Amino acid sequence: MGMPTPVDLDTLDNGPEPSWEVLDRLLDQADDKALQAYLEELPLGELAFAVSHLKEADQLSMLERLPPDLAAQVLDEVPYIQVTEWLDDLKPQSAAAILEELPSDEQADLIGDLEEKDAEAILDEFEPEQAESLRELVRYDDEEAGGLMITEFLAYPAWYTVQNVVEDLRENAEEYNRYPSQYLFVVDDQRRLSGVMRMRDLLLKPMGARLDSFMQDDPHYVNHHDGMDVLDDFFDRFPLLGVPVLNQQQHLLGIVIRSDFMEAWGEKQDEDYMRSQGVMEEELRSMPLLRRMRGRLPWLTANIFLSIVAASVIAMNQDILAELIALAVFLPIVSGVSGNAGFQAVAVSMRELSLGVVRPEEVGRVVLKEMGLGLANGLILGLVLSGLAWFWQGNLWLGLVVGTAMAVNTMFSAVLGGCMPLMLKKMKLDPAVASGPILTTLTDMAGFFLVLSLAAFLMTRLAS
Amino acid sequence: MGMPTPVDLDTLDNGPEPSWEVLDRLLDQADDKALQAYLEELPLGELAFAVSHLKEADQLSMLERLPPDLAAQVLDEVPYIQVTEWLDDLKPQSAAAILEELPSDEQADLIGDLEEKDAEAILDEFEPEQAESLRELVRYDDEEAGGLMITEFLAYPAWYTVQNVVEDLRENAEEYNRYPSQYLFVVDDQRRLSGVMRMRDLLLKPMGARLDSFMQDDPHYVNHHDGMDVLDDFFDRFPLLGVPVLNQQQHLLGIVIRSDFMEAWGEKQDEDYMRSQGVMEEELRSMPLLRRMRGRLPWLTANIFLSIVAASVIAMNQDILAELIALAVFLPIVSGVSGNAGFQAVAVSMRELSLGVVRPEEVGRVVLKEMGLGLANGLILGLVLSGLAWFWQGNLWLGLVVGTAMAVNTMFSAVLGGCMPLMLKKMKLDPAVASGPILTTLTDMAGFFLVLSLAAFLMTRLAS
Repeated sequence: MGMPTPVDLDTLDNGPEPSWEVLDRLLDQADDKALQAYLEELPLGELAFAVSHLKEADQLSMLERLPPDLAAQVLDEVPYIQVTEWLDDLKPQSAAAILEELPSDEQADLIGDLEEKDAEAILDEFEPEQAESLRELVRYDDEEAGGLMITEFLAYPAWYTVQNVVEDLRENAEEYNRYPSQYLFVVDDQRRLSGVMRMRDLLLKPMGARLDSFMQDDPHYVNHHDGMDVLDDFFDRFPLLGVPVLNQQQHLLGIVIRSDFMEAWGEKQDEDYMRSQGVMEEELRSMPLLRRMRGRLPWLTANIFLSIVAASVIAMNQDILAELIALAVFLPIVSGVSGNAGFQAVAVSMRELSLGVVRPEEVGRVVLKEMGLGLANGLILGLVLSGLAWFWQGNLWLGLVVGTAMAVNTMFSAVLGGCMPLMLKKMKLDPAVASGPILTTLTDMAGFFLVLSLAAFLMTRLAS
Repeated sequence: MGMPTPVDLDTLDNGPEPSWEVLDRLLDQADDKALQAYLEELPLGELAFAVSHLKEADQLSMLERLPPDLAAQVLDEVPYIQVTEWLDDLKPQSAAAILEELPSDEQADLIGDLEEKDAEAILDEFEPEQAESLRELVRYDDEEAGGLMITEFLAYPAWYTVQNVVEDLRENAEEYNRYPSQYLFVVDDQRRLSGVMRMRDLLLKPMGARLDSFMQDDPHYVNHHDGMDVLDDFFDRFPLLGVPVLNQQQHLLGIVIRSDFMEAWGEKQDEDYMRSQGVMEEELRSMPLLRRMRGRLPWLTANIFLSIVAASVIAMNQDILAELIALAVFLPIVSGVSGNAGFQAVAVSMRELSLGVVRPEEVGRVVLKEMGLGLANGLILGLVLSGLAWFWQGNLWLGLVVGTAMAVNTMFSAVLGGCMPLMLKKMKLDPAVASGPILTTLTDMAGFFLVLSLAAFLMTRLAS
């Protein structure tokens, strides 16, 4: 974790010529040195961009030709999903050599996401005990502490003195440099965690002092099966750079580094966003067409049937529509605008849930809050729309119908949108995915129904 | 930054009775001790929830009654927007006393977001030179390095020995414990940055060694005016816990801590999400109604006019609709589903932009990619819908019309949705906010137009 040579951050903005063309050239030549030199010099942010524009074959040959440590740096730069693709296709030896250069948590994540046989082939390239510990890590879910922890940490017995530790640090400085943690852990002969200290604390103590004479006992920890929400709350609450991970027997298994967790947390929210927009599988445009269809088509097809359901409300009231065709103009307006009012409420609920200021049980409170706001906004929107309708179609009663429908449906949609994430979360469903479709369908149906049934009720007046 | 006493993370799930009721009781009693004790024991995640359920007056009196350091912890727990509300309303002395307990970057952020006069009143409570340095920090934009940095860091002259440093650390251990950074900086007599080392490096060196004998020279740094994208790229690329911030004269002004940045970055994306859903001002349901309306109403009103524009396409073709009222059923289906195909493309583009695998100039590439996928999906969706229409309305030609419209509009919407974020970014507009409205309006118009004009073209066949 030493400091690499400085990089001119300005190259970010005024980048040079599109660098994948240069890469292309270099790959066609046999000159690996030049390729290396170029990649090592590549300005910040260029690499992912350049690589993602290469033909897949070229991407692989590049990785095969680079020294493993540099190849590993390339992996760090490109989207995760792309990395797994590569590892599946690389020769096991090459893949293993590159993985060797990564921290244990990334090794486990990647191997866990490979196809069974590729994973096994790669693991066979590791030394048996390393392969074994990797297999254990792989068994963890990516979203639990055990799946996010690294197993590179420093742990010493309680009777060690500062002197002992410093000597050990000196001997293994080379290796320990790769350890991100700034903490030392104190464990008993069962490797049960008994204390912790920051490395810099050693500076302030006499060389002869025993670790247990100044360590923090009762350190914080998480259980290896704790989920991301527990970790998120932990790091929210405590300004620590990492947290030790213990199993039921209190054995120290590893540590979750704050920045690693933050990254994973960010990716998780990234995927939630994609799924909330109906992209069901991670997609990069460099992927083959069929693969990309698989991610997008399911939701669109489901969407057709949902909107048929909504539109059937119109079908059932065609006669009313036929009597006053102008209503057809306002159906999409009412359902569309009030639908958006619902999505605003969804957004606020999603955020309040993630901030922890509202809980799934509090549907009642949210209903009240959204009812008030929905009514207020609904009335204003209703007035605006009825005015427009009156002015546009020269029909006061028409204005009354669509205005009322808008007001009522806006309130309905806001209340519904506000509660949905809470209820879905309570049902252990993913609010990000499910909120949208349900809300759209229901508010469309309600909107169509309100406009058309109010019209039916006032038809005599409307037709006049 | 020492380790607080452990917390039972289980209380997260099976929390005790809603704790704001307890808080309410404690606030009614005069017993500050009990209130403190309760807050100090409050399980993880409870605090923000509890406080956000108190009446505003109670929230303030609670802060006034707590010892400043505990009050500062409360501030750390609740949403930022709420904190600024409080500081505006607290007595300047109390506000200043609480701010004293926070790191300089948070002090500056908060003071910067207060109303002018409140900010000045609070700053007057600080010692002059501290107030001055705060005023300087406040001048920075929240989203540039200077606005994100903390000014608590350790810097020593090059001729200092390990001995000198360790003595200084010993003397000021108390204060330095609040410093999050794990690095030591080496500066010349002008406070220009000349080198850096990790604290733990001191452990490995003889007490007599001069800092410049083993420091890393040419350390990385960012300029105080660099934006969040530069910092994001920096922390992506280098596994460092912080980065020094220099001005044009290379003076060391402060450091940006990785975890602080990650937090700010996460909040930024949070706000983008809210705005993308049409919530224009940060909202918590605990805020007053009018304030919440201000955040939601503008977009809804704009939305009415946009959807009027779209619906005017229907208005202009009412006669066709009147001839075959069944078409009205399919208008929302075609525009809705293809609209969603567009939002999928928006999501993929937003993500590829943030991953750096696509650039604003690459509209051409995205058009091609989305055209292929949009056509493929469009054909399938078109077939499905025409089949459904034929079966449902018993009119093959109707099926042909809506199926074709669906296919064409899906491709159009995908292409449009894919390019929009790139084009908006190029125009320095916020893709998160602007993509949605534009896309919806255009795909609705196109969808309505396609269905109705195709119908007009085939009307003889349709009517038969």
